[in-house]
Amino acid sequence: MTVVTLTTDFGLTDPFVGIMKGVLATRAPGVPVIDVSHGVPAQDVLAGALVLRHAVPYFPRGSVHVAVVDPGVGTERRALCVETAGGPLLGPDNGVLSLAASALEIRRIVHLTEERFFLSPRSGTFHGRDVFAPVAAALATGTSPSALGETVADMTRVSVPAVRRDGERVTGAVVYVDRFGNLVTNIDMDTVAPFVGELAVRIGSHRISGVSRSYGAVERGALVAVVNSWGLVEIAARDGSAAAQLGGIGTPVVVERG
Amino acid sequence: MTVVTLTTDFGLTDPFVGIMKGVLATRAPGVPVIDVSHGVPAQDVLAGALVLRHAVPYFPRGSVHVAVVDPGVGTERRALCVETAGGPLLGPDNGVLSLAASALEIRRIVHLTEERFFLSPRSGTFHGRDVFAPVAAALATGTSPSALGETVADMTRVSVPAVRRDGERVTGAVVYVDRFGNLVTNIDMDTVAPFVGELAVRIGSHRISGVSRSYGAVERGALVAVVNSWGLVEIAARDGSAAAQLGGIGTPVVVERG
Amino acid sequence: MTVVTLTTDFGLTDPFVGIMKGVLATRAPGVPVIDVSHGVPAQDVLAGALVLRHAVPYFPRGSVHVAVVDPGVGTERRALCVETAGGPLLGPDNGVLSLAASALEIRRIVHLTEERFFLSPRSGTFHGRDVFAPVAAALATGTSPSALGETVADMTRVSVPAVRRDGERVTGAVVYVDRFGNLVTNIDMDTVAPFVGELAVRIGSHRISGVSRSYGAVERGALVAVVNSWGLVEIAARDGSAAAQLGGIGTPVVVERG
Repeated sequence: MTVVTLTTDFGLTDPFVGIMKGVLATRAPGVPVIDVSHGVPAQDVLAGALVLRHAVPYFPRGSVHVAVVDPGVGTERRALCVETAGGPLLGPDNGVLSLAASALEIRRIVHLTEERFFLSPRSGTFHGRDVFAPVAAALATGTSPSALGETVADMTRVSVPAVRRDGERVTGAVVYVDRFGNLVTNIDMDTVAPFVGELAVRIGSHRISGVSRSYGAVERGALVAVVNSWGLVEIAARDGSAAAQLGGIGTPVVVERG
Repeated sequence: MTVVTLTTDFGLTDPFVGIMKGVLATRAPGVPVIDVSHGVPAQDVLAGALVLRHAVPYFPRGSVHVAVVDPGVGTERRALCVETAGGPLLGPDNGVLSLAASALEIRRIVHLTEERFFLSPRSGTFHGRDVFAPVAAALATGTSPSALGETVADMTRVSVPAVRRDGERVTGAVVYVDRFGNLVTNIDMDTVAPFVGELAVRIGSHRISGVSRSYGAVERGALVAVVNSWGLVEIAARDGSAAAQLGGIGTPVVVERG
Repeated sequence: MTVVTLTTDFGLTDPFVGIMKGVLATRAPGVPVIDVSHGVPAQDVLAGALVLRHAVPYFPRGSVHVAVVDPGVGTERRALCVETAGGPLLGPDNGVLSLAASALEIRRIVHLTEERFFLSPRSGTFHGRDVFAPVAAALATGTSPSALGETVADMTRVSVPAVRRDGERVTGAVVYVDRFGNLVTNIDMDTVAPFVGELAVRIGSHRISGVSRSYGAVERGALVAVVNSWGLVEIAARDGSAAAQLGGIGTPVVVERG
């Protein structure tokens, strides 16, 4: 059974997500719709791309993933269907699909030009409802991606800021903050693997010795570094908020031997 | 397949919505339940009515729509089922159903008096759980609205504040603010159609020339007026919050030739 | 049809809940998943236990209830499946399951040691994804709880602070505050039943005469005491927030004859 997932910056206060689900229920009755997150910060394409990239591997192959973080809605920006080994990704051509697409192996990129799959009339402000939901319904009910438009050569890509290596020192930054105030960095497991067990993490004036297996490895209130569930170095304050103490996105983080 | 939709001011922090879904899963197993929104401002009947009115057209005909914004829960206010061409609407008789009902063509209004469809005992504080969820389950599993109680002549209605016309000037107001800070007015497309293409929108000391097709039609940070996905004039700040600059619900907005 | 319910402190801003649903959709396709609440205050085990305890009675018997409020994730704390007359409860052994378990009649407590039901590799920070979701999927698709690990004698329990009786005076406290600012106490209906009809509720310098059937029994803005939908004495401000006026969790409340 195909499922459709939704990742947006629409929040859950307004009825926008509910309205997309109405379109899906109308055009693809019985197809389960799963919310990945609607709490992507407003118009933050990179955050949406990160969320999608770390969520899709846990869904069934063949799921239809819709991601709408779309400050350019209604302009000339293209709407895309990216076919991947994991399933089709739908969203605007602004990079929101690109991290997930790269992780999943891209098979084809289709520019959504076949307007017969859209709602009509189509607004200039809500393509989640008028374009992406009805196209997701079409895919979930058996339409081939190739029927949706023409194949194009490439898509807009975003990238997580790169880490800098300098001998046995890796300098990165906080790229995501979760609701617990945990600070997720762009430094991955492989980068630190060569000197894990004898490394230190520095952030601001703080120095954390070693990477722990769990948040609970330190005293209440103390800082702890872990490799998190996304495979990234993360800094947490046990039973508290590291973000409140140390800052948010962009804060530099150094991992070094020591 | 019938679906049940939920629109409330319960928020998603507490388990109230989850408990309603438990009742639905018990009494109407397998029936999909879709959240329209639970972020209606607490006890704001007009906001709930607006949300429901603009959401229901996107759901399958025959869907059962439950709307619980109910400051009078447990008092003598009536509980209603409004049969419409789009499907039955369930909620308290305080106007929350009235905008959607009018838009959909009312066939019959039933006062929910048949207590055998309710949970027993019935609390005086949570009719979402004890009245509306079980009645929705009954409707979704084939019970006829006429079995739920007696037909009544009318219902409480709310209305969006009317616009004022004065020659080629229309004065309205902000009636809804979304999570992006976009300001939705009570001025609809038909009202401005006669002079679209040569109109200006005024709010506070700002004057916006013309109605654009999309938010992206202006420079970053600039104000833009659009006809939004609900067919209403809306004022946005590109990639920012118009509400933070210009004010919220009730702020006057003028559309005039110019 | 079995349903799986989720109660967590993950919030809905991040994709954590969505990722758990991806695991469930992969391993138990077609099984409905219902959110009880993801708004449990971060790491507040007692609040999570209260929410679960008052929600599970409204779900079908045999539902699989997952509760993840888990500050000790990745440490030596055990992961449990508690078989009850209402269905299996899954969560960490920190008390989050204990109030619901006691209310439902405990049949067996199983320590989840059979790692073949977990995701592999297993992170030290996200057992909602790696342990509880896949085990819930196993239970929902027919695996017996006894296959999940070894039976153990007991579990960690939390308890709501006890009320104190002194003649015809009962002293309790606020134990939960909902999104409307209503103050839920630990004083239950049975405790006040002997002198209902002639009692008063005191909080701070305020004295409320009698327990009303509904919030609407008093004037707009006035304080009102009700027995709420959980069977507990609750203090509300009609059409307003009692919490804003009177304080939050821990605030003492006295019920006395008068």
